[in-house]
Amino acid sequence: MVSTKNPDSSPDRAAPPSGLVLRRVAIDTYHENVAYLHRECAVYRAEGFQALSKVEVRANGKRILATLNVVDDTAIVGCGELGVSEDAFAQLAVPNGHPAAVSQAEPAASIPALFRKINGERLGREDFEAIVRDIAQHRYSKIELTAFVVACNRSELDREEVYFLTEAMVATGRRLDWHERLVVDKHCIGGIPGNRTSMLVVPIVAAYGLVFPKTSSRAITSPAGTADTMEVLATVEMPFEQLTQIVHQHHGCLAWGGTADLSPADDVLISVERPLNIDSPGQMVASILSKKVAAGATHLVLDIPIGPTAKVRSMPEAQKLRRLFEYVADRLGLSLDVVVTDGRQPIGRGVGPVLEARDVMRVLENHPDAPDDLREKSLRLAGRLIECSPDVRGGDGYRIARDILDSGRALAKMQAIIAAQGAKGFDHHHPALGSLTLDVAAPSAGVVVGIDNLQLARIARLAGAPKVPQAGVDLLKRLGDAVVQGEVLYRIHASYAADLAFARDACERENAYRIGTVDQLPQVFVEF
Amino acid sequence: MVSTKNPDSSPDRAAPPSGLVLRRVAIDTYHENVAYLHRECAVYRAEGFQALSKVEVRANGKRILATLNVVDDTAIVGCGELGVSEDAFAQLAVPNGHPAAVSQAEPAASIPALFRKINGERLGREDFEAIVRDIAQHRYSKIELTAFVVACNRSELDREEVYFLTEAMVATGRRLDWHERLVVDKHCIGGIPGNRTSMLVVPIVAAYGLVFPKTSSRAITSPAGTADTMEVLATVEMPFEQLTQIVHQHHGCLAWGGTADLSPADDVLISVERPLNIDSPGQMVASILSKKVAAGATHLVLDIPIGPTAKVRSMPEAQKLRRLFEYVADRLGLSLDVVVTDGRQPIGRGVGPVLEARDVMRVLENHPDAPDDLREKSLRLAGRLIECSPDVRGGDGYRIARDILDSGRALAKMQAIIAAQGAKGFDHHHPALGSLTLDVAAPSAGVVVGIDNLQLARIARLAGAPKVPQAGVDLLKRLGDAVVQGEVLYRIHASYAADLAFARDACERENAYRIGTVDQLPQVFVEF
Repeated sequence: MVSTKNPDSSPDRAAPPSGLVLRRVAIDTYHENVAYLHRECAVYRAEGFQALSKVEVRANGKRILATLNVVDDTAIVGCGELGVSEDAFAQLAVPNGHPAAVSQAEPAASIPALFRKINGERLGREDFEAIVRDIAQHRYSKIELTAFVVACNRSELDREEVYFLTEAMVATGRRLDWHERLVVDKHCIGGIPGNRTSMLVVPIVAAYGLVFPKTSSRAITSPAGTADTMEVLATVEMPFEQLTQIVHQHHGCLAWGGTADLSPADDVLISVERPLNIDSPGQMVASILSKKVAAGATHLVLDIPIGPTAKVRSMPEAQKLRRLFEYVADRLGLSLDVVVTDGRQPIGRGVGPVLEARDVMRVLENHPDAPDDLREKSLRLAGRLIECSPDVRGGDGYRIARDILDSGRALAKMQAIIAAQGAKGFDHHHPALGSLTLDVAAPSAGVVVGIDNLQLARIARLAGAPKVPQAGVDLLKRLGDAVVQGEVLYRIHASYAADLAFARDACERENAYRIGTVDQLPQVFVEF
Repeated sequence: MVSTKNPDSSPDRAAPPSGLVLRRVAIDTYHENVAYLHRECAVYRAEGFQALSKVEVRANGKRILATLNVVDDTAIVGCGELGVSEDAFAQLAVPNGHPAAVSQAEPAASIPALFRKINGERLGREDFEAIVRDIAQHRYSKIELTAFVVACNRSELDREEVYFLTEAMVATGRRLDWHERLVVDKHCIGGIPGNRTSMLVVPIVAAYGLVFPKTSSRAITSPAGTADTMEVLATVEMPFEQLTQIVHQHHGCLAWGGTADLSPADDVLISVERPLNIDSPGQMVASILSKKVAAGATHLVLDIPIGPTAKVRSMPEAQKLRRLFEYVADRLGLSLDVVVTDGRQPIGRGVGPVLEARDVMRVLENHPDAPDDLREKSLRLAGRLIECSPDVRGGDGYRIARDILDSGRALAKMQAIIAAQGAKGFDHHHPALGSLTLDVAAPSAGVVVGIDNLQLARIARLAGAPKVPQAGVDLLKRLGDAVVQGEVLYRIHASYAADLAFARDACERENAYRIGTVDQLPQVFVEF
């Protein structure tokens, strides 16, 4: 039980034993690096690896961390070989048989700070820098990562700590510089199905002339992310150089943000937050603002929807969250405009990539069936961004945005962006929807007084969205609509019978609509 | 992303695809079960395993949970084979080639309760029962396990929740019944090196005639646990039937508690608490009391040492902890007597298995070099236990214990227990100590005013204890002793030069002793 680490006095003991050669072990371990040593291997026996399973593998100047597995079968690895799993082999990027070394990994340097946070202490700037650096470099075990996330959950971080965390997350990744005085962005905290305003706000604002390099995520728990829906129309994954060129030429883009190494610690943290259903204010602010600042935004409009089944359920809660966003944005030098919006029901008609792409294109074309709520919300958000321009009077943005949309300039801009990214040839007049359908009808007459965003998202996901882009839910009734018994509320589209069956089961348990009387309509005050 | 679980309506979809045969993959994955499927295997392709990596493996009626790895090399597993790591193979206990099935594991049923705890809610009895059952059955991922531990850390559990947790931990494992009205036990919350009172209290109290089936742990972070030290003298791992027989014949035993399946969730929780350095009051109470109740104790004396480098550092803190222990013990029907003791320095002279065994035997023999503090503390604790006997007046226990020790009856009892468990032939008159020694001397003249328990434990561990039983630290000076410059404070014993070098480095940084003036001695009030 002697530690093999003692850098001060016994450097030779810590030095890698030599003589091993690398061997690719054809096992895919799902992004967890695993190293394999034979039990009889001299290195394994000499290093006393039993107690600790985290090792550092080195080859050709590269170092990766891995979990050690011990092998008793020379068909997998022999003595003198250092086996690594497929992902790890790719990261090392050297051929089979290349010299390699392995030693016990140093514990992450920020572990004492982590322990202090677990014990409820307040951490300083250097603590967050050290922790986030270790997380981004995958030096934390799953146990340590989870402990950090849970210890920072709820109201455990004060606002200055949230700022330190955000700043550290920006600092550990790439930070884009567009060489522009004004770089705008928008973001919604999420939770509202169909809410594809970015795909309208970007062409409107870019057509006005502001630089708007929009990168979005794919869906994590929702039936579609902006990247999923945009992908119906155009390629969203492209080399960063191409993205830059598109932004400089067209002032805007709608791309997937996953390849740019922006706030890489965020992705690691999300890998733990998601299975634990954690979405605390501090972590939300750090996640969103770190990505936006790293992406080079100078001005951000943030959409916080409120409603009975939205992430934020009351105006006091929204205002508290707004203040936290504003505090951190100010300290980061990001100009932030928070907009509280109506989150009582989905936005637009379609929920699912193809259905949402159809809605977006209808709004851009000023089509008579274009969903008015999606149009209005997008115009208001675009107007707020246009007002970031120093020569626009407060209050004029909406009118400017509307003129751009009504004149067809937004549609032309969207078509230019689609062409530049790589058009998919989507025919939005005849969208290919999942051919298996199920109409869900009103069980009684009355007025639609509630639509459960969470349950509707669940139904759309069970129907196949976003993995099956043609799947999803098409809403025919909205809050306040009168219905007679048996009238169709929404239509489910699926491509596979099993998916439709899952969605049907979910509907039968809870169809997401509540029918009542007008006085039961939820009231939500929203500002613009 | 359709869930494949839908027990209500599509049982056939959830049913295990058949036709696989089990194959032992000779990889030791350190107690984490891993299953291996070839990428081209029809089962892998059909089940959509990509998204979730936790699977259930079934063979011959047994079910185990495992993490799935995907293999691209038929030398490891071929199509139609279900590979499992060595531990998992042993758990299934069927031969290679036996039919087996694999499917996505159901998420643990208690996950919603876990999420409520993460969000700061109070949980009820059923919640803790469900969570602890899932933990004991290894249904929690490392992420979920860590989240539970951190969410229950600090003052997150109220005392009734601690009771529910403890009760659930007892209920999930085996519960021993000695068929005796009075079954006594003692426990120390830990943190004091050399504190081997159990090895004296057991023979004294058993010689008095009370039933004292003492099971102990091995060292987790200390230089020796009672099981490690007892193992110098006798076998400590034996079949449960043999243990029962020894207890019935001799009234006592000193065995390792690891094989009895007592409070199995505790061991799983410790696997996360230890790397995170978590030792919160609620978790300490649940861990200790669940083990004791499961082991069949009716009366427990609990030792809480306080001192500047002990686990508990002030009397108010000790009293708060005492009240929590008492509340939970009362609800469990366990008679508990908490004793707050002096934890300012190690107990006895030796720190490390052989050194501590020497001290214990010297006390039993009434040897002139027997450490008086170990003798006195053991007599006081034994006296408290003897007073559990209804025919002993309060205050008489100490005297009875002393008579038993002084008369040699305790030594005879210890020799009988050693013989029954299997004597190792340890010669405590000439203990074989690590032959490499280092004397650590006082850097200046004065009085010993501080001994750092934590640093001393660290030095003893670096010297090799408990893995090398002959290694450790032999204390020559204690609190209050006057020393001249250069006088030896303690001697380090090691069996390997590298270990001695590590211990020396640690001493050079911080030798654990503080020399000062008499007025600097820490004062600690302790009760008996």
